[in-house]
Amino acid sequence: MNVINLAEKFASFEDYANPRIVAELNGQHVKVGKLKGPFIWHHHENEDELFLVVQGRLRMEFRDRAVTVGPGEMIVVPRMMEHRPVAEEETHIVLFEPASTVNTGNVHNELTRPSLQRI
Amino acid sequence: MNVINLAEKFASFEDYANPRIVAELNGQHVKVGKLKGPFIWHHHENEDELFLVVQGRLRMEFRDRAVTVGPGEMIVVPRMMEHRPVAEEETHIVLFEPASTVNTGNVHNELTRPSLQRI
Repeated sequence: MNVINLAEKFASFEDYANPRIVAELNGQHVKVGKLKGPFIWHHHENEDELFLVVQGRLRMEFRDRAVTVGPGEMIVVPRMMEHRPVAEEETHIVLFEPASTVNTGNVHNELTRPSLQRI
Repeated sequence: MNVINLAEKFASFEDYANPRIVAELNGQHVKVGKLKGPFIWHHHENEDELFLVVQGRLRMEFRDRAVTVGPGEMIVVPRMMEHRPVAEEETHIVLFEPASTVNTGNVHNELTRPSLQRI
C-alpha cells in the first residue's frame, strides 16, 4: 500500500519499448513505458490492453484507421485486434492489462520482453 | 476503440461518491469518480482496488496508518483491507478494479451504488 508516483517511475529509466511493472492487482499489471517512433504490428490472443497517455502523443494504428491519444486520454485495444502503437514524439504511457500480456503479443522478435522489471 | 478523454468525463458530472464506468476490459472496470470529504470504512471481499488521483488530494486511511495520494499518484488497496478514502478537497480519481466491485464493499447503506452509469 505504498504510494506510486508516476513521475518518479518515469524518471527512473530511459529506454524505449521496455515497460516496467509498477503494480499488480486482480491478476492484472499496471506498467509504465516510454515509446518513441513506431512499434510493431501485433495482437494479443487473450488480453485487452489499456493505454493511458501521460506525456506525448500516441497514434494507435489499426488496419482500417488510426486514432491519436494525447495526455490525459486513454484507449482500450480489444484482444485479437491488430494494432501498431506509433509515438510521434517521446511518449509516456501507463498500461493496464493482464499479467499474462507480452509486449509484442503474437510476434516474437528482438523487441519481445518475456519478463519485465518491477520498479 | 474510442479515445477516452478523462477531463471530458470528469466535466460531464458533478456529484460525489457516484463513480461512472468509462471502460471495461478483461473483466475489469475503469471508473472515474469525484470525492469530497470522508467516505465510509469498508473493505472488498474479493477485489483489489486501484486509485489514481488526477486532481485534488486523497487521504487513504487504514486502521493503523494513513497515506496521502496526490495528482499523478496511485495506490492499490488489497482485498480484505479495511480502508476509508477521505478527500481533503474535491478530488478526482480514476479507479481500476474488477467489474464485480461495489463502491461500499461489505457495507450496504445509502451510499451504496449497486449499478453504475456508463459515460
